[in-house]
Amino acid sequence: MNLFDAIEKRRSVRKYLNEPVARAVIDKAIEAALLAPNSSNLQPWEFYWVTHPEKKKQLVAACLDQATAATAAELVVFVARTDTWRRNRQRILETLGQRGTVPKQQRDYYLKIVPLFYTPGWFSSLGLLKSAVFAVVGLFRPVPRGPFSKSGLRATLSKTVALACENFMLAITAQGYSTCPMEGFDESRVKKILGLGGAANVVMVISVGREDAAGIYGTRLRLDPKLFVFEV
Amino acid sequence: MNLFDAIEKRRSVRKYLNEPVARAVIDKAIEAALLAPNSSNLQPWEFYWVTHPEKKKQLVAACLDQATAATAAELVVFVARTDTWRRNRQRILETLGQRGTVPKQQRDYYLKIVPLFYTPGWFSSLGLLKSAVFAVVGLFRPVPRGPFSKSGLRATLSKTVALACENFMLAITAQGYSTCPMEGFDESRVKKILGLGGAANVVMVISVGREDAAGIYGTRLRLDPKLFVFEV
Repeated sequence: MNLFDAIEKRRSVRKYLNEPVARAVIDKAIEAALLAPNSSNLQPWEFYWVTHPEKKKQLVAACLDQATAATAAELVVFVARTDTWRRNRQRILETLGQRGTVPKQQRDYYLKIVPLFYTPGWFSSLGLLKSAVFAVVGLFRPVPRGPFSKSGLRATLSKTVALACENFMLAITAQGYSTCPMEGFDESRVKKILGLGGAANVVMVISVGREDAAGIYGTRLRLDPKLFVFEV
Repeated sequence: MNLFDAIEKRRSVRKYLNEPVARAVIDKAIEAALLAPNSSNLQPWEFYWVTHPEKKKQLVAACLDQATAATAAELVVFVARTDTWRRNRQRILETLGQRGTVPKQQRDYYLKIVPLFYTPGWFSSLGLLKSAVFAVVGLFRPVPRGPFSKSGLRATLSKTVALACENFMLAITAQGYSTCPMEGFDESRVKKILGLGGAANVVMVISVGREDAAGIYGTRLRLDPKLFVFEV
């Protein structure tokens, strides 16, 4: 499907027909998700495709029993992790090394710059310190303003995972099925179901299925672009 | 362009050729961005297309003089706002009213549920209280766990704006140009350039231009999907 048709066609579907979705459809959409741009290419994402009937039932409950979850053929949980960057950094440097010489600038970036932003410390203590230092230097020249705190890091990584979510949703649309991104869920319960700890942040749960015509909330409603688009 | 080709073709481009990008290309990509799914359809985004030469120069400096910004034909700043929801909610309800009767459930959602999550209060004081109440109720049944704090709300809205960013980047790719999403910028300076206050959060600055072959960092590097994809 043409990109613009997929973007136009994608709607949040709140109710699905009782029809399965082939495994290959989900696989292809996850492949598309993995190609999203992401912060420093550290690929901080995890995708949990919940197919076990009991776990799926629990997940529907954790999604507050929304019809889009309850009627979905498939449910995928998109997670951002604040703790996989050391492992991924190591593997990236190994892969780059296998491909040839790793430029010093790139190695320094991963070994010196990245930790600046990925180690907020206990209760963001280190982050507070770094934030203060950068605020002072920032009086004199442009400097990055974060992420320094734990919540800032979480926000940055959630943002990156959202880019992957959009690829996923468009890829499902292009294959003739529909999605709904859910933010209304009990994150504590979702994490418990998946056995995830404090370094994991549930970004979205996305339902997938064949659209029931009753699953669309009327004509798409977008406000006047003049409210949002500015040329300066 | 086919969706999967656009996803495959999109790479972060760090250097562009000295070639203009037609206005229609950016317009079309912003239109695509505006069609992204978003939190409660409250459309908390703003898109600043910086074309004024002096402001653009300042923006390049605020982007730490990265080559992708310095050589870009166009720069667009993607912003998440925590303060436009009341206005947008009002307009959504008006538009729905013009289209017919607004179901009570939908009206209640916007008037009663949405404020629960969009009013963290001074220093997240209200948010802390709500967070505690939900934690107690959550012992007995699934409940949403936020966003209650100011930082939680910012994270949620940044996530929503990132969905729009991905549409934008794919739309540029499908039109034969390239992009690079930047997170390395001085947010304080970017906000100053755009005249934005505390309720605005700069999610990304995206550069646009015609790819210089030297602007691509080698073959795409994605780690083994087994690290990220789990069926449970």
